[in-house]
Amino acid sequence: MQRFVYADNAGTTALSKTALEAMMPYLTEFYGNPSSIYSLGRKSKTAIETARQKIAAAIGAKAEEIYFTGGGSEADNWAIRSVVEKMSKKGRHIISTAIEHHAVLHTLKALEKQGCEVTYLPVDSYGQISLDELKDAIRDDTILITIMMANNEIGTILPIAEVSKIAKERGILVHTDAVQAVGHIPVDVDELGVDMLSLAAHKFRGPKGIGALYVRKGLFLPAYLTGGGQEKGRRAGTENVAGIVGMAAALEEAIANMDENIKKVTAMRDRLIENLLKIQFSRLTGDPVNRLPGTASFVFECIEGESLVLSLDAKGICASSGSACSSASLDPSHVLLAIGLPHEIAHGSLRLTINEDNTDEDIDYILAEVPPIIARLREMSPLWEDKINGKL
Amino acid sequence: MQRFVYADNAGTTALSKTALEAMMPYLTEFYGNPSSIYSLGRKSKTAIETARQKIAAAIGAKAEEIYFTGGGSEADNWAIRSVVEKMSKKGRHIISTAIEHHAVLHTLKALEKQGCEVTYLPVDSYGQISLDELKDAIRDDTILITIMMANNEIGTILPIAEVSKIAKERGILVHTDAVQAVGHIPVDVDELGVDMLSLAAHKFRGPKGIGALYVRKGLFLPAYLTGGGQEKGRRAGTENVAGIVGMAAALEEAIANMDENIKKVTAMRDRLIENLLKIQFSRLTGDPVNRLPGTASFVFECIEGESLVLSLDAKGICASSGSACSSASLDPSHVLLAIGLPHEIAHGSLRLTINEDNTDEDIDYILAEVPPIIARLREMSPLWEDKINGKL
Repeated sequence: MQRFVYADNAGTTALSKTALEAMMPYLTEFYGNPSSIYSLGRKSKTAIETARQKIAAAIGAKAEEIYFTGGGSEADNWAIRSVVEKMSKKGRHIISTAIEHHAVLHTLKALEKQGCEVTYLPVDSYGQISLDELKDAIRDDTILITIMMANNEIGTILPIAEVSKIAKERGILVHTDAVQAVGHIPVDVDELGVDMLSLAAHKFRGPKGIGALYVRKGLFLPAYLTGGGQEKGRRAGTENVAGIVGMAAALEEAIANMDENIKKVTAMRDRLIENLLKIQFSRLTGDPVNRLPGTASFVFECIEGESLVLSLDAKGICASSGSACSSASLDPSHVLLAIGLPHEIAHGSLRLTINEDNTDEDIDYILAEVPPIIARLREMSPLWEDKINGKL
Repeated sequence: MQRFVYADNAGTTALSKTALEAMMPYLTEFYGNPSSIYSLGRKSKTAIETARQKIAAAIGAKAEEIYFTGGGSEADNWAIRSVVEKMSKKGRHIISTAIEHHAVLHTLKALEKQGCEVTYLPVDSYGQISLDELKDAIRDDTILITIMMANNEIGTILPIAEVSKIAKERGILVHTDAVQAVGHIPVDVDELGVDMLSLAAHKFRGPKGIGALYVRKGLFLPAYLTGGGQEKGRRAGTENVAGIVGMAAALEEAIANMDENIKKVTAMRDRLIENLLKIQFSRLTGDPVNRLPGTASFVFECIEGESLVLSLDAKGICASSGSACSSASLDPSHVLLAIGLPHEIAHGSLRLTINEDNTDEDIDYILAEVPPIIARLREMSPLWEDKINGKL
């Protein structure tokens, strides 16, 4: 039987057994509505509050600073849109970067149509912003800086603590989309100094359809989904109890094993990088040092990323080219363009994202399969002959 | 061992075994991100599209008219807020009723602060609106009529098809919150003539944290959660695949057994109503005829609903007083006030909501336990002596 290797953990992860086991009682016998006052309902309420404490503890927050959402995208929408609503008297200028996730980027684009102004900081070839450019971008009417903690396509970790210091001097709120960071690298809201932080369970072996927004105590963020009094009136809707419990269990597990996981995953990642960079006309994308432990991302010249992903799929390897969310699109990734890659090279991207579920044998298998596939695809490429003859 | 009777199915339901079985593969082996192009991802995508077809078929819609959301509240927020955004050039007047769910009512209140005008149609003692009053309320700048299909507290079914006819003559969009109706009574979007319809899985034995919005083909509703290209760019966020599959399985099961369930549940409900109305100073709330099959709702004078619910809980019976979402509040329900009950009587409400999981023995047990509890609570009430002596 063919080996199966899942190497798209930045897209989504397999649900951890611990998380599933924690969820099962809430998918079966404990089905009470947490807003109900009878014991079956209180059981659900207790489960939610215990989960809230665990998630808060995992990111150095207080339990009352955690609000559950339907996922990372909702958390991003809520944070950004509600700051705009709340701060409209002060101004409508927002600072972000060119490499944010679409949940941030498309939300900012929508707000621009409604009269907001957005400065998208450029990034260097590693995907890093310049703090001086950030300082220069700040205006009197700047109400929010929203910068991701780690990029989903190239794994670059951004200097959020430094961003927050600069923002704080000017009294500006900071939001970070930490969807790719939480559960994978240390995240502490006080060390980061952020006012809001988004996370999503399915990126750290929790279930899909559940996330959270951290909102610093004292910052009263208006609700984005209005209705019932759940989440202290700030996020309406009957709670996804099983999802919340599963998210907390997965995150608790990730935190407990973080040191060990980082060590293991980084070693596997580095083996991927070291060996795949031996392929001719290849380069690493993203910051080589300030980098997520599990992200090995590349571009290979004279390759179509989509063909590469499909060829890998035929060998039982799940990988991606660009992010999962934009995979339906034929445009090259905005992130790869932002780091300065030309269109034709950005098309040849490969993202291998591994986590603690992966093994050294998985890496062996990837390293055995990728180079011949790339060679074969290049042989079929009309550009390849010119490339090797130095005419491109 | 004490009997356990769950009679709060309008609050939430136990997940059906069929739904859970359908979900399990997507909580274990089939964890791919539906936006990924490899086979594991396509497996999830196919599951979602199959679920979409099932849900569409259940309400007489086309598959492409169904958009998945994080629940009924999100569907309500999206429908109402996006119509306001889309139609702002035509006007900002909305017509609704005084008995809507908070997901609608609090959203309308938020929009009023942003410059919308809302007419809340009053209801009669049965919770019914007047179609003449609806006609009179329509203005040239009316952009939306949002009226629930069935009330969550008193079970009244409202005449949505007639509402839509009136709206259509004036070219006004119609949304209905059908969260309490779908899966329990026939719902057909063409017969109803609505443009948008909200539903939530956990009200029909599906999982919590998943819902859908029906949007009639041709009505381009702007996204409310922006980001990735999921749901044709109209609802961002990695899909809750297991939740979607579970919702479809639960709804398919409910539809397959609907005739039988309605017959069985209505008989149990009527036995509750007939026998509990034998209690002195009791009355039925809601429409006695146009009524959800599973809703038996009452007020009992000289009773605190909360004490009644807690006393029932001590006997293993889960019931509610008012809706689950407002149970944390001490104010009497806005619905019971809207049907003309005085504050002190509205406080003495009891909602027993049953579904196909209940049995005749459950009804026997409720009928045995409720009257002595009410008698005991009344004996402790300072008002009771005056009441029975005719002084109140």
